[in-house]
Amino acid sequence: MNDQKILSRLLAEAPTNWGRWGADDEVGALNYLTGEEVKAGLGAVRQHRTFTLGVPIATAAGDHVFPGRWPARHYMVADKAGFEAGHWQTMPGGLEFADDYVSGFAQAGTHCDALGHMWFDDKLWNGYPAGSTNGGMTRAGIEPIAARGIVGRAVLLDMARFRGKPTLGRAETFDHRDLIQCARAQGTEIRPRSILMVRTGWIGALRSGAETIGADYWEPGLTFSLDLVRWFDEMEIPCLVTDTLANETTYEPETGTMLVLHAALMRNLGVVFTEMAWLDDLAADCAADRQYEGFFCASPTRVSKGTGGSANPVFIK
Amino acid sequence: MNDQKILSRLLAEAPTNWGRWGADDEVGALNYLTGEEVKAGLGAVRQHRTFTLGVPIATAAGDHVFPGRWPARHYMVADKAGFEAGHWQTMPGGLEFADDYVSGFAQAGTHCDALGHMWFDDKLWNGYPAGSTNGGMTRAGIEPIAARGIVGRAVLLDMARFRGKPTLGRAETFDHRDLIQCARAQGTEIRPRSILMVRTGWIGALRSGAETIGADYWEPGLTFSLDLVRWFDEMEIPCLVTDTLANETTYEPETGTMLVLHAALMRNLGVVFTEMAWLDDLAADCAADRQYEGFFCASPTRVSKGTGGSANPVFIK
Amino acid sequence: MNDQKILSRLLAEAPTNWGRWGADDEVGALNYLTGEEVKAGLGAVRQHRTFTLGVPIATAAGDHVFPGRWPARHYMVADKAGFEAGHWQTMPGGLEFADDYVSGFAQAGTHCDALGHMWFDDKLWNGYPAGSTNGGMTRAGIEPIAARGIVGRAVLLDMARFRGKPTLGRAETFDHRDLIQCARAQGTEIRPRSILMVRTGWIGALRSGAETIGADYWEPGLTFSLDLVRWFDEMEIPCLVTDTLANETTYEPETGTMLVLHAALMRNLGVVFTEMAWLDDLAADCAADRQYEGFFCASPTRVSKGTGGSANPVFIK
Amino acid sequence: MNDQKILSRLLAEAPTNWGRWGADDEVGALNYLTGEEVKAGLGAVRQHRTFTLGVPIATAAGDHVFPGRWPARHYMVADKAGFEAGHWQTMPGGLEFADDYVSGFAQAGTHCDALGHMWFDDKLWNGYPAGSTNGGMTRAGIEPIAARGIVGRAVLLDMARFRGKPTLGRAETFDHRDLIQCARAQGTEIRPRSILMVRTGWIGALRSGAETIGADYWEPGLTFSLDLVRWFDEMEIPCLVTDTLANETTYEPETGTMLVLHAALMRNLGVVFTEMAWLDDLAADCAADRQYEGFFCASPTRVSKGTGGSANPVFIK
Repeated sequence: MNDQKILSRLLAEAPTNWGRWGADDEVGALNYLTGEEVKAGLGAVRQHRTFTLGVPIATAAGDHVFPGRWPARHYMVADKAGFEAGHWQTMPGGLEFADDYVSGFAQAGTHCDALGHMWFDDKLWNGYPAGSTNGGMTRAGIEPIAARGIVGRAVLLDMARFRGKPTLGRAETFDHRDLIQCARAQGTEIRPRSILMVRTGWIGALRSGAETIGADYWEPGLTFSLDLVRWFDEMEIPCLVTDTLANETTYEPETGTMLVLHAALMRNLGVVFTEMAWLDDLAADCAADRQYEGFFCASPTRVSKGTGGSANPVFIK
Repeated sequence: MNDQKILSRLLAEAPTNWGRWGADDEVGALNYLTGEEVKAGLGAVRQHRTFTLGVPIATAAGDHVFPGRWPARHYMVADKAGFEAGHWQTMPGGLEFADDYVSGFAQAGTHCDALGHMWFDDKLWNGYPAGSTNGGMTRAGIEPIAARGIVGRAVLLDMARFRGKPTLGRAETFDHRDLIQCARAQGTEIRPRSILMVRTGWIGALRSGAETIGADYWEPGLTFSLDLVRWFDEMEIPCLVTDTLANETTYEPETGTMLVLHAALMRNLGVVFTEMAWLDDLAADCAADRQYEGFFCASPTRVSKGTGGSANPVFIK
Repeated sequence: MNDQKILSRLLAEAPTNWGRWGADDEVGALNYLTGEEVKAGLGAVRQHRTFTLGVPIATAAGDHVFPGRWPARHYMVADKAGFEAGHWQTMPGGLEFADDYVSGFAQAGTHCDALGHMWFDDKLWNGYPAGSTNGGMTRAGIEPIAARGIVGRAVLLDMARFRGKPTLGRAETFDHRDLIQCARAQGTEIRPRSILMVRTGWIGALRSGAETIGADYWEPGLTFSLDLVRWFDEMEIPCLVTDTLANETTYEPETGTMLVLHAALMRNLGVVFTEMAWLDDLAADCAADRQYEGFFCASPTRVSKGTGGSANPVFIK
Repeated sequence: MNDQKILSRLLAEAPTNWGRWGADDEVGALNYLTGEEVKAGLGAVRQHRTFTLGVPIATAAGDHVFPGRWPARHYMVADKAGFEAGHWQTMPGGLEFADDYVSGFAQAGTHCDALGHMWFDDKLWNGYPAGSTNGGMTRAGIEPIAARGIVGRAVLLDMARFRGKPTLGRAETFDHRDLIQCARAQGTEIRPRSILMVRTGWIGALRSGAETIGADYWEPGLTFSLDLVRWFDEMEIPCLVTDTLANETTYEPETGTMLVLHAALMRNLGVVFTEMAWLDDLAADCAADRQYEGFFCASPTRVSKGTGGSANPVFIK
């Protein structure tokens, strides 16, 4: 059934945070990340070891992108050969330089979505009209999120390891109860206002070539239920970080509805999505020392009027 | 005098760190940022208040860029009007989306330079050949820096306020002794391995239109001396952050030599340059509470083979 | 006076060709260019000498563009140095290649405007709604013009030479009566359905640096009058070619109205504008042999949904 | 056998035109297109009917590109919705506008190759060093070709129809003897200095989806022999136009050598390649009236330092 009103009906009873932080709010559940949460994040650090979670972009092989997008690209503008060929002049004194240009989606590589990136019923996060996206994000773009930063305590939930697999399979799903069980098995505590980093192993499978992006692309990930949405709401989750392109399973099996959590969590609750994070190295480390919590810091590129921004999140254990 | 051998002579007696961290090193003075320094950074936080230091990019008015570069640009790919016009189809279930594309220099907006971004005498940082920049950075590109992240204790040195000005003037210079005096006046301690954030007020002047970028562009900033280089070396400064486009005064007044500190600090010592940081809001806050130190975290976009990467650094007081 | 209704009033009595070639027409006055006109164009050739009228694009110095646009850029993707550096592999057998990327406005360099490029009162050429431009030209884009080509007999009217100047001055204007006098002085016949190539010398002045594009940019060119519009209509002029960025003087001196002929000729009559043509070399040749007529052929790049397309028109004497 | 010296050996006895038109020549066999040939082209016109041969670029579905390249893209910069959203201001008087940006390979869509686009043994056309491609085409780029234009008499050779097929199959080959037989069957005369337009039906097959571009991509087309090269040389063919991406069959079956005719005809003889022309409509018309010759005019975009330029060739019967 391809009915464009499914989402409206599906979420009729679901909670929203519209208006909760004022009529002009553009950062949603990041409001939960107060100084207290920053303090909790810093307090979770024990070993002072740093991990970065950004994947390379504009790679020679071509980046992995959601169907309909295209890879970021890297172009050298100046290099030594260009100086030798006379296209560039050595600076007074003797300095030469390499310079380069990059083009790609604002959401290239690991990135944060703006709250207005997706909508239904012609309304974005907080009730802003869909027309406010025309020609650039006038409301709920990435700028306010970039200006604020995403800083707090995060926990890694390694769903792939929890299920005893190197990676979850195509279209494999899980929900908040699985996250809770995974945390318990790991000895990790999901607290209110925790930033959730959920590992499926999927980006690793794409990068190794074990999985590919084709016409029938269907990512593993969280699947929708009203209970799940209520749990995110009650737990006041500010930010969901995963190692998939879209942070949730692509379709709901029963209805064929696409990307329901973008509607239920992002558009309705204001949860900020951090997508395509590289979690494999961190997960291996956590599996070894059993420390799954730490300090998280993500600050996307501040793209004017942008629907998102590339980020290279930092996690410190 | 425009003599392409000036730099060689000028720096003949200056210290270098080539080989210090092995023949394959690509992160230079970031090696100073050990777990101890991460710990020191976390320990410097008192108020748990967060500042982001990235300027907006791809702005409608046109970004401020160094002469020879051109502004980043933002293009909407999908918006509500595009759905209404039939260029895009609503997803199964009812979701629609805005999407956008960005192009710009790898060093667009606030960014970190790769250590190989500039060179003289045909050798980059650590002695890599200049030809390794051809067609993309094979050595000393931004990837290893992005993979590591820049995390530690930082101090803000507000040179403009120290001199009682809203902003330093065109071509106005200062050196390490000024930084030390500024720190003293602020009651700030520059410790070994501190990340230095130096404010001139310049980006603010560009953004307000008080200064413009023309043919005779000449930024204020640090000026070269052998003593200054030795001080950076002895203090083991890992990263220099400023609010100018190039982190140092554009020309040495006496020799006309351009960007000498890119040669002396970046190419020779491996100090990572973080340029074009937005420090005005932070500086006003620090002037009010006199707390100039804190936790610093920058993690540039991981551009494959890139000469640099956009960053939106986070500072926590 | 900045009154957004000036154009409506100014053109209330002016002729339009809306509906003349059917409700679905997208090529306007190009309909005048029948096989007869192609024959006339071929018949005008006497010496079989060819001139191309396209300016270089993506130049190192930066292209000349109308305020608000930005220059086209050229990026090498593959070159010999890239092969030597290992970024590319020699093909089986031994072949190597250079490859490159270009980005710029659809109207970069010498180009043809689509009929829907500009409008007022929310209606484009032929009455199509302005909203049909949203997200791409659904109506009156460059594709139908590119698919048809612009082929016929053209005459060069060298207004600069006619006025005894190397180039017309800033804001200098002329009208159809001047064109007629210029033609007479040249011994050239403007016939019905002639393609008009009007030389001001302006691009030459920009390229030599004698003129620059700044905040007060004001091109020389044709100036509006109802009589002029009627003359274009009666003469069934299919295409207007000039060596300025916008084919007409920038502002009407009395009203301050911008680009009135885009409204009167392009939007209302369907005359195709070919802008920024390089006419200086051709003009020098014509001045020498007094042959100002010939065969004209322009076929812009067929940009899908484009507002225009780059062209490199050919003129054969 | 993947031996990078195959081409050198294969072409050791083959003719070249290096030096024939001087040490500085950059247009090669276009030198054959004198005024006499322009006259012959004009003289071949009988019906005064015009065909354009350019395919659309930057299409929503994604352009067909040779493996290793990526499709051209179209971005709206300004449209009516952008004016309504306040991103743009109506001009003084009332005019509004749509504007757009295009990025793609210099060889996007139908295009002409520069003579220096491909090489072996470190030498380009006329003996220029391969290093002259570094950072931009210093020699044998597209600019001189664009400045000259390609104008003359052309004949269509419809190989697909000649073989009784809608399109030639993957890897299907033919040679000059087939072209001669095809011409004879068509009643067409291939004369010295004729521009050859060879139709395989391949682009039509790609556009219809009957063929796709994958890892084992292998186009149909001309196949190498010394006799074929000599025939092109003796016939003084200035320009080869086909409806495939690379103007020749991708690999030589026996040696696995790639794109040998780029070496033998383009690099050695200076024949200009016009690739990816849309010939299906023209071919259907020619099949109906049996007139396969006419006037040909191609003038690629004048890309500074470019390896090629998009073109929308015009053919008049």
